[in-house]
Amino acid sequence: MKLVDLPTPCLVLDRRILQRNLDAMARAVARHGTVTLRPHMKTAKSIDVARLALARPDAKPASDPGGITVSTLIEAEYFVSHGITDILYAVGITPRKLEQVAKLNATGATVMVVTDDLDTAGIIAGHATPPRALIEIDTGEHRGGVCPDDPALIQIAGRLGNSLAGVMTHAGNSYGGRSPGDMRRIAEAERCGVVHAAERLRAGGHTASIVSMGSSPTALHAGSLAGVSEVRAGVYMFGDLFQAEIGTHGPDDIAVTVLASVIGRQPKHNRMLIDAGALALSKDRSTEATPHDFGYGLVLDIGGRRSYGNALVQRAYQEHGVVELDPSHPAPNLPIGAKVRVAPNHACLTAAAHDRYFVVDDGNDTVVAVWPRVNGW
Amino acid sequence: MKLVDLPTPCLVLDRRILQRNLDAMARAVARHGTVTLRPHMKTAKSIDVARLALARPDAKPASDPGGITVSTLIEAEYFVSHGITDILYAVGITPRKLEQVAKLNATGATVMVVTDDLDTAGIIAGHATPPRALIEIDTGEHRGGVCPDDPALIQIAGRLGNSLAGVMTHAGNSYGGRSPGDMRRIAEAERCGVVHAAERLRAGGHTASIVSMGSSPTALHAGSLAGVSEVRAGVYMFGDLFQAEIGTHGPDDIAVTVLASVIGRQPKHNRMLIDAGALALSKDRSTEATPHDFGYGLVLDIGGRRSYGNALVQRAYQEHGVVELDPSHPAPNLPIGAKVRVAPNHACLTAAAHDRYFVVDDGNDTVVAVWPRVNGW
Repeated sequence: MKLVDLPTPCLVLDRRILQRNLDAMARAVARHGTVTLRPHMKTAKSIDVARLALARPDAKPASDPGGITVSTLIEAEYFVSHGITDILYAVGITPRKLEQVAKLNATGATVMVVTDDLDTAGIIAGHATPPRALIEIDTGEHRGGVCPDDPALIQIAGRLGNSLAGVMTHAGNSYGGRSPGDMRRIAEAERCGVVHAAERLRAGGHTASIVSMGSSPTALHAGSLAGVSEVRAGVYMFGDLFQAEIGTHGPDDIAVTVLASVIGRQPKHNRMLIDAGALALSKDRSTEATPHDFGYGLVLDIGGRRSYGNALVQRAYQEHGVVELDPSHPAPNLPIGAKVRVAPNHACLTAAAHDRYFVVDDGNDTVVAVWPRVNGW
Repeated sequence: MKLVDLPTPCLVLDRRILQRNLDAMARAVARHGTVTLRPHMKTAKSIDVARLALARPDAKPASDPGGITVSTLIEAEYFVSHGITDILYAVGITPRKLEQVAKLNATGATVMVVTDDLDTAGIIAGHATPPRALIEIDTGEHRGGVCPDDPALIQIAGRLGNSLAGVMTHAGNSYGGRSPGDMRRIAEAERCGVVHAAERLRAGGHTASIVSMGSSPTALHAGSLAGVSEVRAGVYMFGDLFQAEIGTHGPDDIAVTVLASVIGRQPKHNRMLIDAGALALSKDRSTEATPHDFGYGLVLDIGGRRSYGNALVQRAYQEHGVVELDPSHPAPNLPIGAKVRVAPNHACLTAAAHDRYFVVDDGNDTVVAVWPRVNGW
C-alpha cells in the first residue's frame, strides 16, 4: 500500500523520525544516571509506539517492559491488556475511577493514582484494595497540585498512610518557555519543588520512593535531575509545530502528519481547499503564541519533508481546510485529488481524531504498518 | 442507569430539547410550502437522531425515509447500512472518493456528489457508473464553489452532462450574522445566488431539478425560499453556545452537553478542575467572536439546566478543564467526583470526540438510551 492510495484524511506516522525522537529523549535522560523515563502515552495511545518508547539499551527482561504514564483509564485498560502493567494514571483520581483502578489492579496490574485532595486521600486509603498513590505538587503550572511548602502536603500524606508512594509534578508551564535557557530554569524549578516536597514527606516520616516530574521540554533540557526518580514526557515522541517553535526538537523532527487530498482549486485567490479541516487537524492554535504562527497547520508535499513555502491552513471548517498559498513560492497548482501532508500545531490533539496510524519510513511512500490507537474514555 | 453513575467525560443528549429543535426547524421549513429539509448529519452522526430528524407530519412511506446530507463517506456508508439511501455528500468530490461512492451506489444507494471543478466534472461524467452531481455555488462564504455569474458554471454543467442534477450552496457566512435581520439578508443572498445559478443552467439547456441551500441560521430565518427545492442544516438539532449567541435558538435549547467530574478543588483561587478538557470539549473557541465569550464552555449543574453564574472552562488541557468560578455567584464547592455538565461552544466538534450519546429526557437524570455515533473517516 502506498500513501497515494490511502483514503483521506488520515494520520501518517514516520517511524524513523519517531525513533530519532525516542533516541534523543533516551540520551537526554541517560545523562542523569539512574533516572527512569516513564513515557506518557497520552500522545501516541498505541501499544506499538509504547513498545518502541520502552525499548532501551538497559532494557529489563521481557517480563518487565517498564512503566508508562496514561491520561485516561481506557488507556490504562488497553495497555494492561497488552502486557504493560506498571502504569501511572496522571490525572486527579475520583472515587468512581478508584473503583475502575481497583478492578484493573485485581487482574495483576499496578495502576498508581494521583491526588491533591485531603478527602480523596482518605477515600483512597480506606478502599478495600487501595492503589499506590502519588501526591500532586504544583511547581509553577498552577493547574493542579499542592505547593511544595503547603501544610496540606503532610496532611494528605498522613491520610494516605500506606498507600503513599511519593510525589509527582508536571511543569506544563514549560510550554511558556522559548529557549533552552528558559527550559533549564523551569526544569530546575520543577525539580526543586518536587524534591523539596519529597524531603518534607520523608522528614515527616512518610514514604516518597517515587519522585516524578516531567514535560517534554523539561525532560530534555533539565541540567540536573538530582533527587528525581523518574521523568514523564509524551509529545516528544511525535513532535509538532509548537514543540519545534519552543525548541523541544527541530522543524524536521515532526513524526506525525495528516495526509489530505486537494478538494478545491482557487488559483485566482492563491488558495486551495483540502479535506483536512477542524476534525482531522483539531482547532488547536498553539502556535498563535509562538514567533511563527502556523494557523491550523503547515502544508507539506506528499513526502512530508518539503513545504510549499509558507502554505498554511488558515481556516478550518469541520471537513474543509482552506490553505492560503505562499505568494513568494511557486504555487503548486495541484489537481483535485492530489495529496499533501499537514504538520500539526499540537500532535496530541490532532492524533486524537484518528483511530490508526499509517506507518511509513523516512522518505519512503510505502505504508509498512497500520497501528491502531485507543481513543475516548 | 443514572447520570451520576456514568463514567466521565461523556456526552449527554437531551431528547426533549432535541425534539423541540427538530420541531422548530420543521415549522420554519414548512412555512415555505414544498421545500424539503435534507438534514445534515455531520453534527449528530447517529441513525437514531437521523430517524427523528426525518420524521415529519408529511412523512412518506417507510420505504422512503427521506434524504440526508453527510460530511464524510463513512457517514454515507453508515446511513446506507441503516436504510437511508438518498444522500448528498456535501464536500467536494475527488476521483478516489468517486470510486467509494460508486461502490455504495452499486448497492442501491443514491449518493450524490458535489463539485466546482471542470476536470473533476469530466471525471464524474466519464465514470462507468456516474453518480448524480450538484455544482457548488459560492453565495458569499468564499470557501468553495463557483460564483452564480461565473462562465465556468456553464462549462462545468456541459462537462457533467447527464450527471448534472442541480446546484447547491452553503451560506456559512451566516455565522458572521448577529441578528434575525442579518440572517434574513444572508439567507436572501444565498437564495438569490443559487436560484440565479439554476436559472442560468436551465437557460443553457441543462437540468437543475435540485436547488439546495442551507445553514442552520439561514434555514430558520429565510424570508423566502422561492425557487429553492431543499434546505440543508445540521447544528440546529443540538444547538450550542455559539448558535445561541447568534440567535439560531435560545440559551435553553442546547441539547448536547459534556458530563464531567470535579477532579480538583481550589476554593482559594475560586477555581475547580474537571475531567473535561481539550479532547472532551474540543478547542473550538467560536464564542470568542460573539458578545459573550464562554471560554471553552459554560458549566451547568448535573441537571443541565442551571448554571453556576458565569462559571466557565477558561483553560483546556488534554484531559483537564480549568473552571473559573463566578465571583458574584455562590461557589458550589463541589467535592471531588461531583458531576457537572458543560455546554459546548460548537456541538459538531465537541460531539466528534465521543463515540456515543447517553440520552436523557428534560429534567430527568435517568439514561433512557445509549445511541452510538459514527466518527472518523
